[in-house]
Amino acid sequence: MNQATTALLDADLIVAEDVISIDESIEARYRELDEQSIVLLARQQPVATDLRTIVAALRISVDLQRMGVLARHVAEVARQRHPSCAVADSMRDTIRSMGEVAQRIIAKARGVIISKDAQAALALTANDDEMDLLHHELYRRLLSESYEPDARTVVDITLIGRFYERFADHAVSVARRVAYIAGEGALD
Amino acid sequence: MNQATTALLDADLIVAEDVISIDESIEARYRELDEQSIVLLARQQPVATDLRTIVAALRISVDLQRMGVLARHVAEVARQRHPSCAVADSMRDTIRSMGEVAQRIIAKARGVIISKDAQAALALTANDDEMDLLHHELYRRLLSESYEPDARTVVDITLIGRFYERFADHAVSVARRVAYIAGEGALD
Repeated sequence: MNQATTALLDADLIVAEDVISIDESIEARYRELDEQSIVLLARQQPVATDLRTIVAALRISVDLQRMGVLARHVAEVARQRHPSCAVADSMRDTIRSMGEVAQRIIAKARGVIISKDAQAALALTANDDEMDLLHHELYRRLLSESYEPDARTVVDITLIGRFYERFADHAVSVARRVAYIAGEGALD
Repeated sequence: MNQATTALLDADLIVAEDVISIDESIEARYRELDEQSIVLLARQQPVATDLRTIVAALRISVDLQRMGVLARHVAEVARQRHPSCAVADSMRDTIRSMGEVAQRIIAKARGVIISKDAQAALALTANDDEMDLLHHELYRRLLSESYEPDARTVVDITLIGRFYERFADHAVSVARRVAYIAGEGALD
Protein backbone atom coordinates (compact mmCIF):
# COMPACT_ATOMS: atom_id res chain seq x y z
CA MET A 1 0.00 0.00 0.00
CA ASN A 2 2.99 2.23 0.62
CA GLN A 3 4.12 1.73 -2.96
CA ALA A 4 0.55 2.14 -4.21
CA THR A 5 0.41 5.54 -2.49
CA THR A 6 3.68 6.53 -4.19
CA ALA A 7 2.32 5.37 -7.55
CA LEU A 8 -0.82 7.41 -6.98
CA LEU A 9 0.77 10.65 -5.73
CA ASP A 10 3.68 10.64 -8.19
CA ALA A 11 1.64 9.23 -11.13
CA ASP A 12 4.44 6.68 -11.38
CA LEU A 13 3.50 3.93 -13.84
CA ILE A 14 6.46 1.66 -13.05
CA VAL A 15 5.68 1.60 -9.33
CA ALA A 16 1.99 1.01 -10.16
CA GLU A 17 2.85 -2.00 -12.34
CA ASP A 18 5.09 -3.28 -9.57
CA VAL A 19 2.25 -3.18 -7.01
CA ILE A 20 -0.01 -5.01 -9.46
CA SER A 21 2.54 -7.78 -9.96
CA ILE A 22 3.24 -8.08 -6.20
CA ASP A 23 -0.47 -8.74 -5.70
CA GLU A 24 -0.17 -11.84 -7.90
CA SER A 25 2.48 -13.30 -5.62
CA ILE A 26 0.25 -12.58 -2.59
CA GLU A 27 -2.50 -14.63 -4.26
CA ALA A 28 -0.12 -17.59 -4.60
CA ARG A 29 0.94 -17.40 -0.94
CA TYR A 30 -2.66 -17.10 0.15
CA ARG A 31 -3.46 -20.43 -1.52
CA GLU A 32 -0.35 -22.01 0.01
CA LEU A 33 -1.40 -20.86 3.49
CA ASP A 34 -4.89 -22.31 2.95
CA GLU A 35 -3.47 -25.64 1.87
CA GLN A 36 -1.08 -25.77 4.84
CA SER A 37 -3.90 -24.94 7.26
CA ILE A 38 -6.15 -27.67 5.87
CA VAL A 39 -3.33 -30.25 5.92
CA LEU A 40 -2.60 -29.35 9.57
CA LEU A 41 -6.28 -29.69 10.50
CA ALA A 42 -6.48 -33.10 8.82
CA ARG A 43 -3.18 -34.57 10.04
CA GLN A 44 -2.64 -33.03 13.47
CA GLN A 45 -6.27 -32.92 14.65
CA PRO A 46 -5.40 -29.86 16.75
CA VAL A 47 -7.36 -28.71 19.79
CA ALA A 48 -7.37 -25.62 22.05
CA THR A 49 -4.77 -22.96 21.11
CA ASP A 50 -3.47 -24.91 18.11
CA LEU A 51 -6.97 -25.19 16.69
CA ARG A 52 -7.69 -21.51 17.33
CA THR A 53 -4.41 -20.58 15.62
CA ILE A 54 -5.25 -22.49 12.44
CA VAL A 55 -8.84 -21.26 12.33
CA ALA A 56 -7.58 -17.70 12.81
CA ALA A 57 -4.98 -18.26 10.06
CA LEU A 58 -7.78 -19.26 7.67
CA ARG A 59 -9.40 -15.89 8.36
CA ILE A 60 -6.19 -13.85 8.46
CA SER A 61 -5.18 -15.17 5.04
CA VAL A 62 -8.40 -13.74 3.56
CA ASP A 63 -7.70 -10.36 5.16
CA LEU A 64 -4.14 -10.24 3.83
CA GLN A 65 -5.28 -11.32 0.39
CA ARG A 66 -7.91 -8.54 0.34
CA MET A 67 -5.32 -5.99 1.50
CA GLY A 68 -3.20 -6.96 -1.50
CA VAL A 69 -6.19 -6.51 -3.81
CA LEU A 70 -7.02 -3.11 -2.29
CA ALA A 71 -3.42 -1.88 -2.75
CA ARG A 72 -3.61 -3.15 -6.34
CA HIS A 73 -6.87 -1.22 -6.86
CA VAL A 74 -5.15 2.01 -5.73
CA ALA A 75 -2.28 1.28 -8.15
CA GLU A 76 -4.81 0.58 -10.93
CA VAL A 77 -6.33 4.04 -10.49
CA ALA A 78 -2.81 5.51 -10.80
CA ARG A 79 -2.24 3.45 -13.96
CA GLN A 80 -5.59 4.40 -15.52
CA ARG A 81 -4.97 8.10 -15.01
CA HIS A 82 -1.30 8.06 -16.05
CA PRO A 83 0.34 10.37 -17.19
CA SER A 84 -2.15 12.56 -15.28
CA CYS A 85 -2.27 12.38 -11.51
CA ALA A 86 -5.58 11.14 -10.07
CA VAL A 87 -5.13 13.29 -6.95
CA ALA A 88 -5.74 17.07 -7.01
CA ASP A 89 -3.35 19.29 -5.06
CA SER A 90 -5.95 20.03 -2.39
CA MET A 91 -6.19 16.35 -1.53
CA ARG A 92 -2.54 15.26 -1.67
CA ASP A 93 -1.86 15.76 2.04
CA THR A 94 -4.91 13.75 3.11
CA ILE A 95 -4.10 10.88 0.75
CA ARG A 96 -0.46 10.94 1.87
CA SER A 97 -1.60 10.75 5.50
CA MET A 98 -3.92 7.84 4.64
CA GLY A 99 -0.94 6.08 3.08
CA GLU A 100 1.13 6.70 6.21
CA VAL A 101 -1.59 5.42 8.52
CA ALA A 102 -1.99 2.34 6.29
CA GLN A 103 1.75 1.74 6.56
CA ARG A 104 1.76 2.13 10.35
CA ILE A 105 -1.24 -0.12 10.81
CA ILE A 106 0.14 -2.94 8.65
CA ALA A 107 3.51 -2.71 10.43
CA LYS A 108 1.69 -3.04 13.75
CA ALA A 109 -0.48 -5.91 12.47
CA ARG A 110 2.71 -7.67 11.39
CA GLY A 111 4.17 -7.11 14.86
CA VAL A 112 1.00 -8.49 16.45
CA ILE A 113 1.12 -11.63 14.29
CA ILE A 114 4.71 -12.24 15.43
CA SER A 115 4.27 -11.30 19.12
CA LYS A 116 0.69 -12.68 19.51
CA ASP A 117 0.26 -9.79 21.94
CA ALA A 118 -3.50 -9.39 22.54
CA GLN A 119 -3.11 -5.93 24.09
CA ALA A 120 -1.14 -4.60 21.11
CA ALA A 121 -3.82 -6.17 18.90
CA LEU A 122 -6.58 -4.22 20.59
CA ALA A 123 -4.51 -0.99 20.45
CA LEU A 124 -4.62 -1.20 16.64
CA THR A 125 -8.19 0.06 16.70
CA ALA A 126 -6.87 3.57 17.43
CA ASN A 127 -5.11 3.62 14.06
CA ASP A 128 -8.34 2.58 12.41
CA ASP A 129 -10.11 5.55 14.02
CA GLU A 130 -7.37 7.78 12.59
CA MET A 131 -8.04 6.31 9.12
CA ASP A 132 -11.78 6.93 9.50
CA LEU A 133 -11.11 10.58 10.37
CA LEU A 134 -8.88 11.00 7.31
CA HIS A 135 -11.51 9.29 5.19
CA HIS A 136 -14.14 11.81 6.35
CA GLU A 137 -11.65 14.64 5.79
CA LEU A 138 -11.16 13.40 2.21
CA TYR A 139 -14.91 13.45 1.52
CA ARG A 140 -15.25 16.85 3.18
CA ARG A 141 -12.61 18.25 0.81
CA LEU A 142 -14.18 16.49 -2.16
CA LEU A 143 -17.61 17.96 -1.37
CA SER A 144 -16.42 21.43 -0.35
CA GLU A 145 -18.15 24.20 -2.27
CA SER A 146 -14.92 25.91 -3.28
CA TYR A 147 -13.78 22.77 -5.11
CA GLU A 148 -15.50 21.83 -8.36
CA PRO A 149 -13.92 18.62 -9.59
CA ASP A 150 -15.12 16.77 -12.68
CA ALA A 151 -17.16 13.62 -12.10
CA ARG A 152 -14.27 11.32 -13.04
CA THR A 153 -12.11 12.77 -10.27
CA VAL A 154 -14.92 12.38 -7.76
CA VAL A 155 -15.36 8.72 -8.75
CA ASP A 156 -11.61 8.05 -8.42
CA ILE A 157 -11.21 9.78 -5.07
CA THR A 158 -14.35 8.15 -3.66
CA LEU A 159 -13.04 4.71 -4.55
CA ILE A 160 -9.50 5.46 -3.37
CA GLY A 161 -10.86 6.63 -0.01
CA ARG A 162 -12.87 3.44 0.29
CA PHE A 163 -9.81 1.28 -0.60
CA TYR A 164 -7.68 2.83 2.17
CA GLU A 165 -10.50 2.56 4.68
CA ARG A 166 -11.11 -1.12 3.89
CA PHE A 167 -7.35 -1.78 4.01
CA ALA A 168 -7.28 -0.45 7.58
CA ASP A 169 -10.41 -2.46 8.48
CA HIS A 170 -8.71 -5.66 7.35
CA ALA A 171 -5.54 -4.85 9.32
CA VAL A 172 -7.69 -4.41 12.43
CA SER A 173 -9.42 -7.73 11.67
CA VAL A 174 -6.01 -9.43 11.47
CA ALA A 175 -5.15 -8.06 14.90
CA ARG A 176 -8.52 -9.06 16.39
CA ARG A 177 -8.02 -12.58 15.11
CA VAL A 178 -4.62 -12.74 16.77
CA ALA A 179 -6.33 -11.66 20.03
CA TYR A 180 -8.76 -14.55 19.50
CA ILE A 181 -5.82 -17.00 19.36
CA ALA A 182 -4.75 -15.66 22.76
CA GLY A 183 -8.25 -16.45 24.03
CA GLU A 184 -9.57 -12.88 23.95
CA GLY A 185 -12.75 -12.13 22.01
CA ALA A 186 -14.54 -13.93 19.19
CA LEU A 187 -12.94 -15.16 15.96
CA ASP A 188 -14.94 -12.58 13.96
CA MET B 1 -30.24 -6.47 -0.80
CA ASN B 2 -33.64 -6.63 -2.44
CA GLN B 3 -35.10 -4.50 0.35
CA ALA B 4 -32.07 -2.21 0.28
CA THR B 5 -32.75 -1.57 -3.43
CA THR B 6 -36.37 -0.73 -2.62
CA ALA B 7 -35.25 1.62 0.17
CA LEU B 8 -32.87 3.30 -2.25
CA LEU B 9 -35.18 3.68 -5.26
CA ASP B 10 -38.29 4.65 -3.26
CA ALA B 11 -36.37 6.74 -0.66
CA ASP B 12 -38.23 4.60 1.89
CA LEU B 13 -36.88 5.23 5.37
CA ILE B 14 -38.83 2.43 7.08
CA VAL B 15 -37.50 -0.20 4.68
CA ALA B 16 -33.98 1.26 5.08
CA GLU B 17 -34.18 0.96 8.88
CA ASP B 18 -35.46 -2.59 8.48
CA VAL B 19 -32.43 -3.59 6.36
CA ILE B 20 -30.11 -2.05 8.93
CA SER B 21 -31.71 -4.03 11.76
CA ILE B 22 -31.70 -7.28 9.75
CA ASP B 23 -27.94 -6.88 9.37
CA GLU B 24 -27.59 -7.02 13.16
CA SER B 25 -29.27 -10.43 13.26
CA ILE B 26 -26.95 -11.63 10.47
CA GLU B 27 -23.98 -10.65 12.67
CA ALA B 28 -25.35 -12.79 15.51
CA ARG B 29 -25.85 -15.82 13.23
CA TYR B 30 -22.39 -15.35 11.77
CA ARG B 31 -20.86 -15.71 15.25
CA GLU B 32 -23.06 -18.75 15.96
CA LEU B 33 -21.88 -20.42 12.76
CA ASP B 34 -18.24 -19.73 13.67
CA GLU B 35 -18.70 -21.23 17.12
CA GLN B 36 -20.43 -24.32 15.74
CA SER B 37 -17.67 -24.82 13.15
CA ILE B 38 -14.94 -24.59 15.77
CA VAL B 39 -16.77 -26.96 18.14
CA LEU B 40 -17.16 -29.47 15.29
CA LEU B 41 -13.46 -29.21 14.40
CA ALA B 42 -12.46 -29.78 18.04
CA ARG B 43 -14.91 -32.59 18.89
CA GLN B 44 -15.36 -34.51 15.66
CA GLN B 45 -11.81 -34.20 14.29
CA PRO B 46 -13.26 -34.38 10.78
CA VAL B 47 -11.33 -35.45 7.67
CA ALA B 48 -11.94 -35.44 3.90
CA THR B 49 -15.36 -34.05 2.86
CA ASP B 50 -16.43 -33.25 6.41
CA LEU B 51 -13.28 -31.21 6.98
CA ARG B 52 -13.66 -29.42 3.64
CA THR B 53 -17.28 -28.62 4.52
CA ILE B 54 -16.38 -26.99 7.84
CA VAL B 55 -13.42 -25.08 6.41
CA ALA B 56 -15.65 -23.85 3.58
CA ALA B 57 -18.33 -22.88 6.12
CA LEU B 58 -15.76 -20.73 7.95
CA ARG B 59 -15.20 -18.85 4.69
CA ILE B 60 -18.83 -18.80 3.55
CA SER B 61 -19.88 -17.23 6.85
CA VAL B 62 -17.53 -14.29 6.19
CA ASP B 63 -19.02 -13.84 2.70
CA LEU B 64 -22.58 -13.87 3.98
CA GLN B 65 -21.70 -11.48 6.80
CA ARG B 66 -20.12 -9.05 4.29
CA MET B 67 -23.16 -9.32 2.03
CA GLY B 68 -25.30 -8.24 4.97
CA VAL B 69 -22.99 -5.28 5.60
CA LEU B 70 -23.05 -4.26 1.92
CA ALA B 71 -26.88 -4.34 1.83
CA ARG B 72 -26.84 -2.25 5.00
CA HIS B 73 -24.48 0.26 3.36
CA VAL B 74 -26.93 0.66 0.45
CA ALA B 75 -29.76 1.21 2.95
CA GLU B 76 -27.60 3.73 4.84
CA VAL B 77 -27.19 5.82 1.69
CA ALA B 78 -30.99 5.78 1.30
CA ARG B 79 -31.36 6.86 4.93
CA GLN B 80 -28.77 9.63 4.67
CA ARG B 81 -30.43 11.14 1.60
CA HIS B 82 -34.01 10.76 2.85
CA PRO B 83 -36.44 12.42 2.06
CA SER B 84 -34.51 12.99 -1.19
CA CYS B 85 -33.78 10.03 -3.42
CA ALA B 86 -30.05 9.25 -3.90
CA VAL B 87 -30.69 7.95 -7.42
CA ALA B 88 -31.30 10.31 -10.36
CA ASP B 89 -33.95 9.30 -12.92
CA SER B 90 -31.32 8.51 -15.55
CA MET B 91 -29.80 5.85 -13.30
CA ARG B 92 -32.91 4.20 -11.82
CA ASP B 93 -33.13 1.44 -14.42
CA THR B 94 -29.48 0.44 -14.03
CA ILE B 95 -29.71 0.37 -10.23
CA ARG B 96 -32.98 -1.58 -10.42
CA SER B 97 -31.28 -4.12 -12.71
CA MET B 98 -28.32 -4.38 -10.31
CA GLY B 99 -30.80 -5.12 -7.52
CA GLU B 100 -32.46 -7.80 -9.65
CA VAL B 101 -29.15 -9.45 -10.53
CA ALA B 102 -28.16 -9.35 -6.83
CA GLN B 103 -31.44 -11.05 -5.96
CA ARG B 104 -30.99 -13.74 -8.63
CA ILE B 105 -27.39 -14.41 -7.67
CA ILE B 106 -28.13 -14.78 -3.94
CA ALA B 107 -31.10 -17.07 -4.71
CA LYS B 108 -28.78 -19.23 -6.81
CA ALA B 109 -26.04 -19.19 -4.16
CA ARG B 110 -28.63 -20.35 -1.63
CA GLY B 111 -29.65 -23.14 -4.01
CA VAL B 112 -26.01 -24.15 -4.44
CA ILE B 113 -25.48 -24.31 -0.65
CA ILE B 114 -28.48 -26.65 -0.36
CA SER B 115 -27.79 -28.81 -3.44
CA LYS B 116 -23.96 -28.77 -3.18
CA ASP B 117 -24.07 -28.86 -7.00
CA ALA B 118 -20.59 -27.90 -8.24
CA GLN B 119 -21.82 -27.29 -11.82
CA ALA B 120 -24.52 -24.87 -10.66
CA ALA B 121 -21.86 -23.21 -8.49
CA LEU B 122 -19.63 -22.55 -11.48
CA ALA B 123 -22.60 -21.27 -13.54
CA LEU B 124 -23.01 -18.44 -11.00
CA THR B 125 -20.04 -16.66 -12.58
CA ALA B 126 -22.29 -15.67 -15.51
CA ASN B 127 -24.46 -13.61 -13.15
CA ASP B 128 -21.35 -11.92 -11.84
CA ASP B 129 -20.40 -10.93 -15.40
CA GLU B 130 -23.87 -9.43 -15.77
CA MET B 131 -23.30 -7.39 -12.59
CA ASP B 132 -19.93 -6.16 -13.88
CA LEU B 133 -21.58 -4.97 -17.10
CA LEU B 134 -24.26 -3.10 -15.16
CA HIS B 135 -21.57 -1.60 -12.93
CA HIS B 136 -19.73 -0.26 -15.99
CA GLU B 137 -23.04 0.99 -17.42
CA LEU B 138 -23.67 2.87 -14.16
CA TYR B 139 -20.27 4.61 -14.35
CA ARG B 140 -20.77 5.34 -18.03
CA ARG B 141 -24.05 7.13 -17.22
CA LEU B 142 -22.46 8.90 -14.25
CA LEU B 143 -19.60 10.21 -16.41
CA SER B 144 -21.65 11.01 -19.54
CA GLU B 145 -21.18 14.57 -20.70
CA SER B 146 -24.91 15.29 -20.87
CA TYR B 147 -25.27 14.58 -17.14
CA GLU B 148 -23.85 17.07 -14.66
CA PRO B 149 -24.50 15.73 -11.19
CA ASP B 150 -23.28 17.41 -8.02
CA ALA B 151 -20.28 15.83 -6.29
CA ARG B 152 -22.40 14.35 -3.49
CA THR B 153 -24.47 12.38 -6.01
CA VAL B 154 -21.33 11.11 -7.72
CA VAL B 155 -19.93 9.94 -4.37
CA ASP B 156 -23.18 8.14 -3.48
CA ILE B 157 -23.59 6.43 -6.85
CA THR B 158 -19.92 5.42 -6.97
CA LEU B 159 -20.20 3.75 -3.57
CA ILE B 160 -23.57 2.16 -4.35
CA GLY B 161 -22.16 0.68 -7.55
CA ARG B 162 -19.23 -0.73 -5.59
CA PHE B 163 -21.54 -2.20 -2.93
CA TYR B 164 -23.62 -4.12 -5.52
CA GLU B 165 -20.50 -5.32 -7.31
CA ARG B 166 -18.90 -6.60 -4.10
CA PHE B 167 -22.18 -8.23 -3.08
CA ALA B 168 -22.14 -10.24 -6.32
CA ASP B 169 -18.44 -11.08 -5.84
CA HIS B 170 -19.19 -12.55 -2.41
CA ALA B 171 -22.12 -14.59 -3.77
CA VAL B 172 -19.77 -16.06 -6.39
CA SER B 173 -17.23 -16.79 -3.63
CA VAL B 174 -19.89 -18.67 -1.68
CA ALA B 175 -20.63 -20.79 -4.74
CA ARG B 176 -16.93 -21.45 -5.42
CA ARG B 177 -16.49 -22.60 -1.84
CA VAL B 178 -19.37 -25.04 -2.24
CA ALA B 179 -17.62 -26.38 -5.37
CA TYR B 180 -14.50 -26.84 -3.19
CA ILE B 181 -16.51 -29.02 -0.78
CA ALA B 182 -17.42 -31.21 -3.76
CA GLY B 183 -13.69 -31.52 -4.48
CA GLU B 184 -13.59 -29.06 -7.41
CA GLY B 185 -11.14 -26.16 -7.25
CA ALA B 186 -9.33 -24.44 -4.38
CA LEU B 187 -10.95 -23.15 -1.18
CA ASP B 188 -10.19 -19.56 -2.22
